[in-house]
Amino acid sequence: MILKGPTGCGKTRFVEYMAAKLNKPLVTVACNEDTTASDLTGRFLLSGDSTDWHDGPLTAAVRHGAICYLDEVVEARADALVVIHPLTDDRRILPLDKRGELIHAHPDFQLVVSYNPGYQAFGKDLKPSTRQRFGAIEFHYADEAAEADIVAHEGEVERNIAVRLVRIAAQSRQLRGRGLVEGISTRMLVQAAALIRSGIDAPAACALAMTCPLTDDDEVRTALDGFVRAQF
Amino acid sequence: MILKGPTGCGKTRFVEYMAAKLNKPLVTVACNEDTTASDLTGRFLLSGDSTDWHDGPLTAAVRHGAICYLDEVVEARADALVVIHPLTDDRRILPLDKRGELIHAHPDFQLVVSYNPGYQAFGKDLKPSTRQRFGAIEFHYADEAAEADIVAHEGEVERNIAVRLVRIAAQSRQLRGRGLVEGISTRMLVQAAALIRSGIDAPAACALAMTCPLTDDDEVRTALDGFVRAQF
Amino acid sequence: MILKGPTGCGKTRFVEYMAAKLNKPLVTVACNEDTTASDLTGRFLLSGDSTDWHDGPLTAAVRHGAICYLDEVVEARADALVVIHPLTDDRRILPLDKRGELIHAHPDFQLVVSYNPGYQAFGKDLKPSTRQRFGAIEFHYADEAAEADIVAHEGEVERNIAVRLVRIAAQSRQLRGRGLVEGISTRMLVQAAALIRSGIDAPAACALAMTCPLTDDDEVRTALDGFVRAQF
Amino acid sequence: MILKGPTGCGKTRFVEYMAAKLNKPLVTVACNEDTTASDLTGRFLLSGDSTDWHDGPLTAAVRHGAICYLDEVVEARADALVVIHPLTDDRRILPLDKRGELIHAHPDFQLVVSYNPGYQAFGKDLKPSTRQRFGAIEFHYADEAAEADIVAHEGEVERNIAVRLVRIAAQSRQLRGRGLVEGISTRMLVQAAALIRSGIDAPAACALAMTCPLTDDDEVRTALDGFVRAQF
Amino acid sequence: MILKGPTGCGKTRFVEYMAAKLNKPLVTVACNEDTTASDLTGRFLLSGDSTDWHDGPLTAAVRHGAICYLDEVVEARADALVVIHPLTDDRRILPLDKRGELIHAHPDFQLVVSYNPGYQAFGKDLKPSTRQRFGAIEFHYADEAAEADIVAHEGEVERNIAVRLVRIAAQSRQLRGRGLVEGISTRMLVQAAALIRSGIDAPAACALAMTCPLTDDDEVRTALDGFVRAQF
Amino acid sequence: MILKGPTGCGKTRFVEYMAAKLNKPLVTVACNEDTTASDLTGRFLLSGDSTDWHDGPLTAAVRHGAICYLDEVVEARADALVVIHPLTDDRRILPLDKRGELIHAHPDFQLVVSYNPGYQAFGKDLKPSTRQRFGAIEFHYADEAAEADIVAHEGEVERNIAVRLVRIAAQSRQLRGRGLVEGISTRMLVQAAALIRSGIDAPAACALAMTCPLTDDDEVRTALDGFVRAQF
Repeated sequence: MILKGPTGCGKTRFVEYMAAKLNKPLVTVACNEDTTASDLTGRFLLSGDSTDWHDGPLTAAVRHGAICYLDEVVEARADALVVIHPLTDDRRILPLDKRGELIHAHPDFQLVVSYNPGYQAFGKDLKPSTRQRFGAIEFHYADEAAEADIVAHEGEVERNIAVRLVRIAAQSRQLRGRGLVEGISTRMLVQAAALIRSGIDAPAACALAMTCPLTDDDEVRTALDGFVRAQF
Repeated sequence: MILKGPTGCGKTRFVEYMAAKLNKPLVTVACNEDTTASDLTGRFLLSGDSTDWHDGPLTAAVRHGAICYLDEVVEARADALVVIHPLTDDRRILPLDKRGELIHAHPDFQLVVSYNPGYQAFGKDLKPSTRQRFGAIEFHYADEAAEADIVAHEGEVERNIAVRLVRIAAQSRQLRGRGLVEGISTRMLVQAAALIRSGIDAPAACALAMTCPLTDDDEVRTALDGFVRAQF
Repeated sequence: MILKGPTGCGKTRFVEYMAAKLNKPLVTVACNEDTTASDLTGRFLLSGDSTDWHDGPLTAAVRHGAICYLDEVVEARADALVVIHPLTDDRRILPLDKRGELIHAHPDFQLVVSYNPGYQAFGKDLKPSTRQRFGAIEFHYADEAAEADIVAHEGEVERNIAVRLVRIAAQSRQLRGRGLVEGISTRMLVQAAALIRSGIDAPAACALAMTCPLTDDDEVRTALDGFVRAQF
Repeated sequence: MILKGPTGCGKTRFVEYMAAKLNKPLVTVACNEDTTASDLTGRFLLSGDSTDWHDGPLTAAVRHGAICYLDEVVEARADALVVIHPLTDDRRILPLDKRGELIHAHPDFQLVVSYNPGYQAFGKDLKPSTRQRFGAIEFHYADEAAEADIVAHEGEVERNIAVRLVRIAAQSRQLRGRGLVEGISTRMLVQAAALIRSGIDAPAACALAMTCPLTDDDEVRTALDGFVRAQF
Repeated sequence: MILKGPTGCGKTRFVEYMAAKLNKPLVTVACNEDTTASDLTGRFLLSGDSTDWHDGPLTAAVRHGAICYLDEVVEARADALVVIHPLTDDRRILPLDKRGELIHAHPDFQLVVSYNPGYQAFGKDLKPSTRQRFGAIEFHYADEAAEADIVAHEGEVERNIAVRLVRIAAQSRQLRGRGLVEGISTRMLVQAAALIRSGIDAPAACALAMTCPLTDDDEVRTALDGFVRAQF
Repeated sequence: MILKGPTGCGKTRFVEYMAAKLNKPLVTVACNEDTTASDLTGRFLLSGDSTDWHDGPLTAAVRHGAICYLDEVVEARADALVVIHPLTDDRRILPLDKRGELIHAHPDFQLVVSYNPGYQAFGKDLKPSTRQRFGAIEFHYADEAAEADIVAHEGEVERNIAVRLVRIAAQSRQLRGRGLVEGISTRMLVQAAALIRSGIDAPAACALAMTCPLTDDDEVRTALDGFVRAQF
């Protein structure tokens, strides 16, 4: 299964929820441009005089029937994407070339990957032959009412505050493609809310947790600060 | 033999069928941009204190007279394509440089490679001197009636449903080169049919198995969703 | 926490001050384009006949609860930035792949990174998914009065001299983006002040410590020398 | 000696004929972009506990006085071309750096290289200082009558069939530079003839052995199929 | 300290003079694009059966309190420039990662680097954060009278000859940026003078030591030869 | 000393002559884009169980006082050019980093390098700081009369034949920059003369030894063949 959606919209949460609901162990790997096949499948490690094989997270999930969640999978290197191919068709096998072992996936093994379509401008994309192996679900930020509930609950602030934060985020998301790669995420809203709750005044908390980390562009920053001032 | 055709049109199935009909073992290698000569021919692996040679899939096929099928062969690295050269002329030999061994191919050994001409836009192509070593067969998606039969049979849905799915696919294939690298494949149709059969309503099944994995482009997605709505 | 601001404006000083105030050990790493994950986490080193593991600065800070300060973090290589990811979310863990060890961060461990937004013209930037993990504080040069106090105190010159030096710096900072990547920093002012105090006449000290190191461009140099002559 | 000419026009046959006529052993190396100096000169290989030196094909030819034929020499990597330099001037020596050995060429040793000038569009060319070391002979496809004789003889078909196949090839060679890197080679004609002789009808045999492997371009393919239809 | 100025204007001489005057040992490293951190700090070398650490030139200078002079420092690789950073701020330390040793610089240790601003066209430049760590002195060729003295003294020719050579050099330096990267240096003048003194006639000596090495451009060469003819 | 001039004009011959005249051993290294510092200075080689150091050609010349001739020096890699720097100034030393040895050059050691200014179009050039270390002599092809003498003598043909060959070469050299990187060299003329002497008729000998190796361009070839026909 492919989960598509912007950073911090709840893809990881969704996978954690499904794992809990299905009562299966969950193995999460945050992929990046240095994630190689060995990072997923395992490697030989020094232990005293000898070298022992240590299963990587994907191998462990395949052996023991866990859900393996590859976050931001388009960031991983090509050879990492390749090891998942024989796992995602009829064969359901994982070949460990370095060990000369071929693992047949545990019947409970499931593979979930996620990526952010908004990053394709960076030239990262999945190949058609990889896409064909998955079903896909699209994620969006929650609607304003639901997002305010989340921020109020997770950040432990009054709903009143949460609503204003969510409005700032909604406006920032309009700037996507016009100076911002992404708008303010739900995660950032929760962080700002927690700062406000700890006693920092709202504009400073918004600067610290939301507008200052989000951009270095003076014009965009001015626009974001305007959104904040309009609410607080 | 070269098999040319789009992803998921049945090239692999054809090879599996021929292997079964000829009663020969089949060794399939899904090539990718990290497939090297060693991945095909074999390597030395640690086993306890010593290092032992393990034949790769091509070597095993050459020794024992199997059909070796290199899927998406244009993806493999140049040195991987090179090891097949002496196998595909009069010599029919496989030199294993690292072992200092020269294998004469078993008389039953056959080599089949496939690639997708639609991917040439990515700059991947076979060299003329490689092409000259093979005969070639072109594959296309089955015509609509035959494809509907396949979808109805493999997805276990009524022919009525299968016909509509095939129409969506036919329309999506018109978008090739206009926003899509490839249209919806037969394989995706079978997956959508299986979801419909499991009780998911048709538009949701089409989104999950067909339109959502296929593209991240909003305009193309809207067009695809229109094709779905026109059928269901 | 991210600290953003120009070179030599006091980011490092701020971290040192906070570490002293919080009574925590501080581990500083000046990142550069050859800073790898191993430079941060540690490596095996030869010691006589055997190879022993030596913790890198980040690992030491994680184990013992220090503040780890990564200066100019955008310079570091991608794999170095990646090792901080699991440290900066709920997990607060540091995996040492090469050792097969997983360290849970000491409760006192804190991570502070800094970068200079003015260098983004060089194509160095943080990824959105990294930015989301941090709060951020913006630094600017101190205002002229405060900066003069600093220069007078640190350079041990009369306030009168310090004021003139600060005026030169303020003018040079107007040239940012018009021939200069950065203006004269507070650090350079302190160096010039110290030279003046040691008996070198002011224009020569300004050339030696400020205008000559700052640029090789004849036009910009002439402008800077004009600023110096206007004060001394 | 340099042999220049298109793929499949008989360069390799010519060398084999000359070797037979001169009664000298022939060592053929098909060069490719991964052919390194070690592939030509030899390397140390594991054999049980020790590592033994194994002469490469060029070294063997130099030692024992064979003809060494480097096919498609422009494909080889620069260091491979360099090892032949001291062999091709007055010195006639082959230095084996890794072994610390210097071999004086056997008096019977001869070096023949070939390349296809039609591939220069790919940026592959010999350096002037390399060219100066060789004499050169140009090869072309045989004239139509002679080529028909070859096809009839090698493909074991009636001359009538061979003549028609040769006409198709002649027309295809007009397309060189207008959509085709190379026309249909004599080798392809022989393969098509052999298929016809095995009972496949002529248009299908031409598609399988000639037009389908040669191109993926729809327009060029249509032109080639037209040439076939005009003959059969 | 940074010394800036054209090739052969006396930067190295200046450092040698200062070292002699201060009665300190001098360690000179001519940097180039393959100069790595290990070249400066040291490496493990084979000596019989064991591997011993050998201090590099920078390490030796740091330990024993010498002046270390890095000539053409912008040529060195990034990691080489990085090892000097902790040496050039308050810390004055040199970390030897590979040995796990941290050296505190000897109080007499001084670091001088030089580069040629005229080479910046080649894309080589110091980073602002590196420049900030140094004071800088600019060097120019000596004025014509002083340069004639130097040439007469070092080349052991009559002042009359030296004056004419210096005039040629002065004219050549006008061509900087118009076909020449650099004009004729003082060093070249001394070499030409020495050739004249050894009995070679002046135009031939100028060609041999000055104009022929300086350029391969026919037009520029003609201009330079004109300057020579005007003097001799 | 730098020798500049086209391929095959006699630079190597000149060095051999000077070495013979000065009664010094000569060590020649043909540089290429894979020539590294180790190729010049030496390396550790396996010999039975131990690894022994073997001096490279430059090291041998430095130790024993030979002339070292680096042919086509601009082809060598940057680190190879760097090892000659300390040999070509006052120091006359060769540091062997890998061995931890520093060799002071034998008083008789001399270094001569050559390159072909006509190849600068390929982006190969010497750095100004390298050029400054050498005197330079320019070489041209001999004038027609002298070149005819050489061809008659070395190729053992009548002067009449040699004169005609030289005329062809002179015309071909007019094509430099208009389709040819270099014209026909003296060396090629000698080879053609030798073929004529062995009984091959003149036009065929010229094609084999001169025009066919020189170019793959049909137009240029036609022009060259015209020059040949005009003489024979």
